[in-house]
Amino acid sequence: MIYFDCDYMAGGHPEVMNRLNETNLLHTSGYGTDEFTHDAEKLILDECGIPEGKVYFMVGGTQTNAVVIDRLLSRNDGVIATETAHISVHEAGAIELSGHKILTLPESDGKLTAVAVDAYMTSFFADETNAHMVRPAMVYISFPTELGTVYSREELQSLYDVCGKWGMPLYIDGARLAYGLAVKDNGLTIKDIAHLCDVFYIGGTKCGALFGEAVVTRRPELLPRFFSLMKMHGAVLAKGRLLGVQFQTLFKNGLYSEIGRKAVELALRLKRGFMEKGLTPYIDSPTNQQFFILPNDTIELLRRNASFELWGPPGETESIVRFVTDWTTTEADCDAIIGLLPD
Amino acid sequence: MIYFDCDYMAGGHPEVMNRLNETNLLHTSGYGTDEFTHDAEKLILDECGIPEGKVYFMVGGTQTNAVVIDRLLSRNDGVIATETAHISVHEAGAIELSGHKILTLPESDGKLTAVAVDAYMTSFFADETNAHMVRPAMVYISFPTELGTVYSREELQSLYDVCGKWGMPLYIDGARLAYGLAVKDNGLTIKDIAHLCDVFYIGGTKCGALFGEAVVTRRPELLPRFFSLMKMHGAVLAKGRLLGVQFQTLFKNGLYSEIGRKAVELALRLKRGFMEKGLTPYIDSPTNQQFFILPNDTIELLRRNASFELWGPPGETESIVRFVTDWTTTEADCDAIIGLLPD
Amino acid sequence: MIYFDCDYMAGGHPEVMNRLNETNLLHTSGYGTDEFTHDAEKLILDECGIPEGKVYFMVGGTQTNAVVIDRLLSRNDGVIATETAHISVHEAGAIELSGHKILTLPESDGKLTAVAVDAYMTSFFADETNAHMVRPAMVYISFPTELGTVYSREELQSLYDVCGKWGMPLYIDGARLAYGLAVKDNGLTIKDIAHLCDVFYIGGTKCGALFGEAVVTRRPELLPRFFSLMKMHGAVLAKGRLLGVQFQTLFKNGLYSEIGRKAVELALRLKRGFMEKGLTPYIDSPTNQQFFILPNDTIELLRRNASFELWGPPGETESIVRFVTDWTTTEADCDAIIGLLPD
Amino acid sequence: MIYFDCDYMAGGHPEVMNRLNETNLLHTSGYGTDEFTHDAEKLILDECGIPEGKVYFMVGGTQTNAVVIDRLLSRNDGVIATETAHISVHEAGAIELSGHKILTLPESDGKLTAVAVDAYMTSFFADETNAHMVRPAMVYISFPTELGTVYSREELQSLYDVCGKWGMPLYIDGARLAYGLAVKDNGLTIKDIAHLCDVFYIGGTKCGALFGEAVVTRRPELLPRFFSLMKMHGAVLAKGRLLGVQFQTLFKNGLYSEIGRKAVELALRLKRGFMEKGLTPYIDSPTNQQFFILPNDTIELLRRNASFELWGPPGETESIVRFVTDWTTTEADCDAIIGLLPD
Repeated sequence: MIYFDCDYMAGGHPEVMNRLNETNLLHTSGYGTDEFTHDAEKLILDECGIPEGKVYFMVGGTQTNAVVIDRLLSRNDGVIATETAHISVHEAGAIELSGHKILTLPESDGKLTAVAVDAYMTSFFADETNAHMVRPAMVYISFPTELGTVYSREELQSLYDVCGKWGMPLYIDGARLAYGLAVKDNGLTIKDIAHLCDVFYIGGTKCGALFGEAVVTRRPELLPRFFSLMKMHGAVLAKGRLLGVQFQTLFKNGLYSEIGRKAVELALRLKRGFMEKGLTPYIDSPTNQQFFILPNDTIELLRRNASFELWGPPGETESIVRFVTDWTTTEADCDAIIGLLPD
Repeated sequence: MIYFDCDYMAGGHPEVMNRLNETNLLHTSGYGTDEFTHDAEKLILDECGIPEGKVYFMVGGTQTNAVVIDRLLSRNDGVIATETAHISVHEAGAIELSGHKILTLPESDGKLTAVAVDAYMTSFFADETNAHMVRPAMVYISFPTELGTVYSREELQSLYDVCGKWGMPLYIDGARLAYGLAVKDNGLTIKDIAHLCDVFYIGGTKCGALFGEAVVTRRPELLPRFFSLMKMHGAVLAKGRLLGVQFQTLFKNGLYSEIGRKAVELALRLKRGFMEKGLTPYIDSPTNQQFFILPNDTIELLRRNASFELWGPPGETESIVRFVTDWTTTEADCDAIIGLLPD
Repeated sequence: MIYFDCDYMAGGHPEVMNRLNETNLLHTSGYGTDEFTHDAEKLILDECGIPEGKVYFMVGGTQTNAVVIDRLLSRNDGVIATETAHISVHEAGAIELSGHKILTLPESDGKLTAVAVDAYMTSFFADETNAHMVRPAMVYISFPTELGTVYSREELQSLYDVCGKWGMPLYIDGARLAYGLAVKDNGLTIKDIAHLCDVFYIGGTKCGALFGEAVVTRRPELLPRFFSLMKMHGAVLAKGRLLGVQFQTLFKNGLYSEIGRKAVELALRLKRGFMEKGLTPYIDSPTNQQFFILPNDTIELLRRNASFELWGPPGETESIVRFVTDWTTTEADCDAIIGLLPD
Repeated sequence: MIYFDCDYMAGGHPEVMNRLNETNLLHTSGYGTDEFTHDAEKLILDECGIPEGKVYFMVGGTQTNAVVIDRLLSRNDGVIATETAHISVHEAGAIELSGHKILTLPESDGKLTAVAVDAYMTSFFADETNAHMVRPAMVYISFPTELGTVYSREELQSLYDVCGKWGMPLYIDGARLAYGLAVKDNGLTIKDIAHLCDVFYIGGTKCGALFGEAVVTRRPELLPRFFSLMKMHGAVLAKGRLLGVQFQTLFKNGLYSEIGRKAVELALRLKRGFMEKGLTPYIDSPTNQQFFILPNDTIELLRRNASFELWGPPGETESIVRFVTDWTTTEADCDAIIGLLPD
């Protein structure tokens, strides 16, 4: 079976596992106060070009989003996001659990536009009854988006400018950041990301780690008493060094970039192969998630040898499917699934 | 350096690590829907003698307590616990984050008594103004307690009877369950625990796992839509099989019991050694945490070669210290620290 | 100045005030345990034809919605409402404060349709990932709607049937119930309302009371320990009898109906007058709120002698305005404002 | 029957009712934007000697405490209070509903001491694990206390100094403020109160108003976007002017003080009478609540003609009872109940 279901189906990248094994018997202090964690933080801040910044490690994406958003918002504030944002649809109400409303705006190719945010803010503050409404006080986007698309430098800059204009922090969910950074002609580096938002997280779980996400900010004053808030949300790992060891490995010799680069290369190989067989992408994604509209019998055919997910409900004659690559994907996997397609 | 600080200073037990390594490259479905997780659940339920029960795996103790308590309580309910309960003191307000009050009662050797609970309930329901008060609706205890003590079968049975009398579930925090079960003359097995409460969790993090806790109930109807609630609390691991693999290993050939047994044996060895040197235990603990009142200069002396924690603020001439053993502790470690004591 | 701004600009209906004055010096027990409150409850249940039902009195609409919804939902449940629902837009996040997501659906003339709800539920339960989503578990509508429209008997019956099909309670926000019941050709009585939903509230604040809302249910088992939850939400009035006295007055001799009837009659008089002057209603409302699209210079003209609100942002040449009648409105008021319109 | 049950058994003081009646038919804008409310605010700030301060009106005490505390605390903060504090015992979990822990300290005559708070803070910040604990971030007291006692100027000054030392706001629940201010030899004026804390509320419900409480602060920056938070908590009254009219009346010609003065005078008359009959006060209260330990047969005797409450559970031969005076109490009432006592 060839696996294209998702990027969290296997364990950790071999180098990550090696390092966890090597360090397994060491005794260190708990809760992220160890040297591995300090070193991982330093590596990340250096790569981001923000030596005065701060990094916090958590276990998973939903908890990371919940804690960060809970800190950035005051009690009676809401967060702006797209209608299909992960926090709005697939996190089971984790943001509302902390009492915050998600204020959704329409999207464009999975992306939030600076124009839409600006219009919303203008209209909110023009409304004389707005004290009866939830105040929009931060913006959430993901990079790449749920649809695999990425913001260009100009789009991100505009969005960040609009956030600045209205005094709101911009937060980027980077669950799949490695793949977004690997989009060649987009030219956004992790350093750019670190400077084009206020807080973001570097996804580990879907990008080579066994598990773990790293929240990064170049404005630590935005996240006061953050460790304590993480603890309150049940988001602190007793053996915190497990996160430190993993991110240290991912960021020591460019492993994180390499994982992203290779998976995207393979995703594009798959995309080209599908298109050469005359199939239509559902959306033009440059990252490790590829979406195609396939005839249902083709889907059935592929499923004999490959595993992948439908995107939304099945259609009568054709359906949208998603193929995801990661560090376990090989050229052979891609070629094999392309080979299964009817001519 | 010899380490007696805590039971989460090293990584995972070698057998656990081996199994994680062996299964690392396999592709499985996410969120605990894999075979490892199913198998781990089955092993646990069998050992507990509750084949119709249900097991849920989470990453850490605070999140486990928060999610379980949030499910067992209705909105305007509170949880009874001792004044020093972990949930009341050291979880940064995780229970209150979900809107629930912790109703604290005095303790006896770290334990909650059936008599105290019964008196509290009687008084609550006798109070005509109790609709203005938070209704006590469940009981939380830990086994072993924060002070390393354990409930006897009679104590636990009485407590469970009182809970039943008042229609409240009893929940046991088993962060260090392995050590509590290893107390020989107490004679409580995991099967007993499973039948003397409604929900409990088997601590992995402090008992040999790399991380992870297993919530167990023989009354699954008490935890409806629990996975979804876990997700809402950010307590679901994408690569859920990591938890399945670990608990499968811990429960396949009695490893969990063995880890508990050995650590307690060493803790008692240490305790005997200290007592033979004329030192006084702060409390008579039969588990892997030992508390001693030591002269401050003895503490200073020991610290040159051993690492351990003060329990509470330092005293003027003597202080309480805690020594914790786990699967990394050796006989040599115990003998060495005893050897450091002045005669 | 003639006032058409809103239905809460004056105090209480003279009969309500008289009764408050008459009873002012009496000593009664607090928190709604007095005879006035019991009597008011009985009068309401009788009029609703549900003698086995239950009534709870609160002070205002937002708190009423927050407490009822918080009780009807379990922690990880959400409430379905229209995109323009009062709870979603103008209650400052009161529902989210309790941790619940509002799941919004498009509306038709301000109304939620049975078809839309059914489609949403079907799609939710067909989605294999729905454990990662907020479960829709109740439906909120208002009667009349924010736009003054009312559900027909058939529409309400269909909606309630769909709720029944999916096992969800239907809750009706009746902030302006008196006016909705006064729509002649709709033919829905308060008895019908009581039987076509699970819980509803009878708005007092906007319908003749000094303040106060009465939550009514013919299924008291849906609102367990409701007084205590009200208290937890800060929604209990110490001098509870103030609410009892008011609702007793409103429901003793048909005053509530009469207030609705008269205000709607005057609203329709105003509507006819405006239409005879060639003006276009923004929506065809049969209740005490009338919406017209007026040229901006006409608006300016009217404002010299009358007070009313714009509905949404002003347009360049014309804008939508709202005129609201209540028990203080007179025929002369209506005729006067019509008289101000240019021919 | 003579009533000494509580100070919320009758309606509003006649002057308050007169003013509500006189203004009943006026049309004003809603939500406290009217002239009555502005004027009431000004009167209060003038009397408090803090013209740059701010006043917010709410309906009841529990909601007032919940909203103020929710604003003064950040998410992961707790509030210090005594073990018997109203917010901890008799508000049904309203503070926890917003996610905040109440950190209780032992009391002295119902009062919190500066020494206890200082010791608690010192110990909290000395504890190296305090990031795992709820940070104490404000202090709640009531004036008078639940037991009718009052803080002396020195006690209050010390407490406020300690709060200042630790950077925490001090909040005073003044549900019965009028009676506390009427304690002659204590010499604390409302101006003193306003300057010896950061936020306090002037109780209306128990001190002559029909209902209503006025939150006062001389540091408005501590309560940002407070109206919106009130709305979120369902604590905004549509006909906000009802609160303005009442407090305007209470503060225009010293009515509030007069109500307090007279009730306390009568309470002391009752106290003297009881003591002259050889009865023992349970606590030496100088305000409108008097507590006596009475033989059960005396209680039975009194109950034939008077109404009052037991304080706590009944004793075998004697019990604690509470007598409360207010603006409805007369000298005759006091003399009558004293006359009922056996010699």
